Amino acid sequence: MTLILEARSGGEVDFIREVASREGVDYYLLRRRVAAGRVVIPRNNRKKGARLVGVGEGLTTKVNVNVGTSGVYVDYELEERKVELALRYGADTLMDLSTGGDLDYVRRRLIEKSGGAPFGTVPTYQAWIEGVRRYGSVASIPPDWFLEVVERHLRDGVDFMTIHAAVTRDLASRAVKSRRVMPIVSRGGSMVSAWMLETGRENPYLENWGQVLELFREYDAVISLGDALRPGATADALDELQVGELLLNAKLARESVEKGVQVMIEGPGHVTLDKVVADVKLAKSLSGGVPYYVLGPLVTDTAAGYDHIAAAIGAALAAAAGADLICYLTPAEHLGLPNEEQVKEGLIASKIAAHAGDLVKLGRRAALPDVKMSVARAKLDWEYQLKNAYDPERAAEIRGQFGGAALKSCTMCGQYCVFLLLDKYTRGRREPSVEELLERYGEGLEL
Amino acid sequence: MTLILEARSGGEVDFIREVASREGVDYYLLRRRVAAGRVVIPRNNRKKGARLVGVGEGLTTKVNVNVGTSGVYVDYELEERKVELALRYGADTLMDLSTGGDLDYVRRRLIEKSGGAPFGTVPTYQAWIEGVRRYGSVASIPPDWFLEVVERHLRDGVDFMTIHAAVTRDLASRAVKSRRVMPIVSRGGSMVSAWMLETGRENPYLENWGQVLELFREYDAVISLGDALRPGATADALDELQVGELLLNAKLARESVEKGVQVMIEGPGHVTLDKVVADVKLAKSLSGGVPYYVLGPLVTDTAAGYDHIAAAIGAALAAAAGADLICYLTPAEHLGLPNEEQVKEGLIASKIAAHAGDLVKLGRRAALPDVKMSVARAKLDWEYQLKNAYDPERAAEIRGQFGGAALKSCTMCGQYCVFLLLDKYTRGRREPSVEELLERYGEGLEL
Repeated sequence: MTLILEARSGGEVDFIREVASREGVDYYLLRRRVAAGRVVIPRNNRKKGARLVGVGEGLTTKVNVNVGTSGVYVDYELEERKVELALRYGADTLMDLSTGGDLDYVRRRLIEKSGGAPFGTVPTYQAWIEGVRRYGSVASIPPDWFLEVVERHLRDGVDFMTIHAAVTRDLASRAVKSRRVMPIVSRGGSMVSAWMLETGRENPYLENWGQVLELFREYDAVISLGDALRPGATADALDELQVGELLLNAKLARESVEKGVQVMIEGPGHVTLDKVVADVKLAKSLSGGVPYYVLGPLVTDTAAGYDHIAAAIGAALAAAAGADLICYLTPAEHLGLPNEEQVKEGLIASKIAAHAGDLVKLGRRAALPDVKMSVARAKLDWEYQLKNAYDPERAAEIRGQFGGAALKSCTMCGQYCVFLLLDKYTRGRREPSVEELLERYGEGLEL
Repeated sequence: MTLILEARSGGEVDFIREVASREGVDYYLLRRRVAAGRVVIPRNNRKKGARLVGVGEGLTTKVNVNVGTSGVYVDYELEERKVELALRYGADTLMDLSTGGDLDYVRRRLIEKSGGAPFGTVPTYQAWIEGVRRYGSVASIPPDWFLEVVERHLRDGVDFMTIHAAVTRDLASRAVKSRRVMPIVSRGGSMVSAWMLETGRENPYLENWGQVLELFREYDAVISLGDALRPGATADALDELQVGELLLNAKLARESVEKGVQVMIEGPGHVTLDKVVADVKLAKSLSGGVPYYVLGPLVTDTAAGYDHIAAAIGAALAAAAGADLICYLTPAEHLGLPNEEQVKEGLIASKIAAHAGDLVKLGRRAALPDVKMSVARAKLDWEYQLKNAYDPERAAEIRGQFGGAALKSCTMCGQYCVFLLLDKYTRGRREPSVEELLERYGEGLEL
């Protein structure tokens, strides 16, 4: 029985209990949301020692980190170190996007390294890369092969997978002839599209949708419906191709939930700030509220080298509007494979965005870190402030520069620190309690 | 005659013509907005070779960089190098916030270095620091002294100045006894407040408001009305102290415009994402639409070490909602004086935020960089992409890591680059023109 079906049966479901307890939400409410497909808990039933992470309505926004080799650079140890870094700096989920080296081997190594965290893949990559080798050409790859690779990933214990099922042959044909700046920017989506355009056949995942559902049901894994036609430029955002694919993804999502298979929908991409909320609301509304997994979105196309910042802006607003899982972007986006430092920078930017969104979406349920940090700041409690920074070492290093480590205040304000200047006037005032401060954030709302 | 009065007289005003031409807006429209105080062009009439920068309604969002010594670290050369960096990476305006060393000397050196860019100061700092030395104690500083220092800055050619006129004695008394987490976090605001609490007198700028207006009118400089009671924690945002001060600032702003003195209002601070638009709309509505100059806002209190990112999130939304000038924040915010690298990082984050806001506020008038970057990206034109990055050297370095510099695609996707994979299917399609792509961004709107 899958988690959704268990939740529907009305009995006690340990996994849901554990997530409810960790998130501080009501168990029965969470169980109803899992039953309705509005929350997923990605965990392949073959996996031992899974770390349970809830993704969806009413829960904190989660952050995913992509790792993996590329077709031109393969260093398994480097990718393992990225996984370690991601876990150290608070990634909630991980995805292996490897396209170079031994793809089964690297996937298994990274799963091993991931400490039970929800682990995702994009099986289309392997299907394409090994399919071309095995069958001699793209046109010769049989549709069944795509599903065989999916099953191989499921057997390895992969918890969630991007499945590009909604880019139909018709949509792909229209996309490559379209007036978009960039017809298709999803790598897996372009592979499935090229296969359809070469063979003249329909999308292999869509044609075998019943079988896809069976497979994910058997392993109780989460389908993450890919957005092959996500906009790769802000000029292409919310166009008929993107929304055409979303309509079908939403239909497939509703079918999945009905069949007891957990599902998410993936979103963009490049979207100007005025369209971010609309994008999230549309996906949620069409799909019946399944979790929405966004890649940024980037709110400008101009920020290569700093795309983690352009993405954090979009992600914060998306999270505030109801997006549930944010895929990090690194400073190397649009330029190349990220190094370790860039993985860390990208993850922290996404964590900040997710939390900024949660302060809106969850209100006071998310505000304790802000309240405690502000109280520590007002008391010039540097130990607390540094220890609870996103990167304590970096924060301590900055505090220490120009000889600041020993100061009561800091090197910016020195003796003119407001807390020192005003100490004699504020002393004796009745300071607000943590509870009183939390109350100010309200119940939470979605933009 | 001041710029506002000239604009009102209906004649030809060269400065306005120049800004209109640079921004691509109609001259008569811009002149009406200057006349109404909705756009300012900060330029002290004693200054030679001023670079004209328009700030306000219908113009691109500008970014300010703060530099300056601190009470515990004085290195004039370092601050000069920060000015150079700021200009190199596209700062629109500069402010000297020095509180250490010879304050007249450092101000003059930095003005000299600033290449005519609009240059601002916070005279309250010098009034306090030198006032205590000169008169022996805070309580002994006479109110006139605050205005004397303002005039000294005006004589040096300072183009705009933070004037903390709206924190009344009553507001300051209430603030220090309030249930805020942080009663007052503005350094200049806390100095004026401490002076009022020590002397029992009213705010010296407010008491002598007519004289302040006379001075700024004489030099045709811009008053930037400080927000001494801006929230320093998200828990304190949009409370009665902040709004109480804003009400008075708005009144003073309307009076300034009436008298022909250019004026801006300064805004927060720390504000959760759901309140950012409201904060901007409130300031604009109360003040009759004078330019709004925001410090971030930071959308979470937790991001020390990465506050440039928390600020970029708030700033992008604020700009989209109508904020006109964004004060950068660096990764060193809340930790200490920034070093050069941190100045650069903070500036670029703010530039990205300002531009993301402009894509909404100005629509297609701001979208050319995005369109051209996207077209270059789709063509794998790396030369264009790197040259037009916010930091070309950094972008080139990232592209080059793991041996990427010589690739047709990049080290992330290698041979599986979507533009290579789909080339044969997209070839021959009618590509959209730059004009067609710009049309997609619309006329612009304010959130």
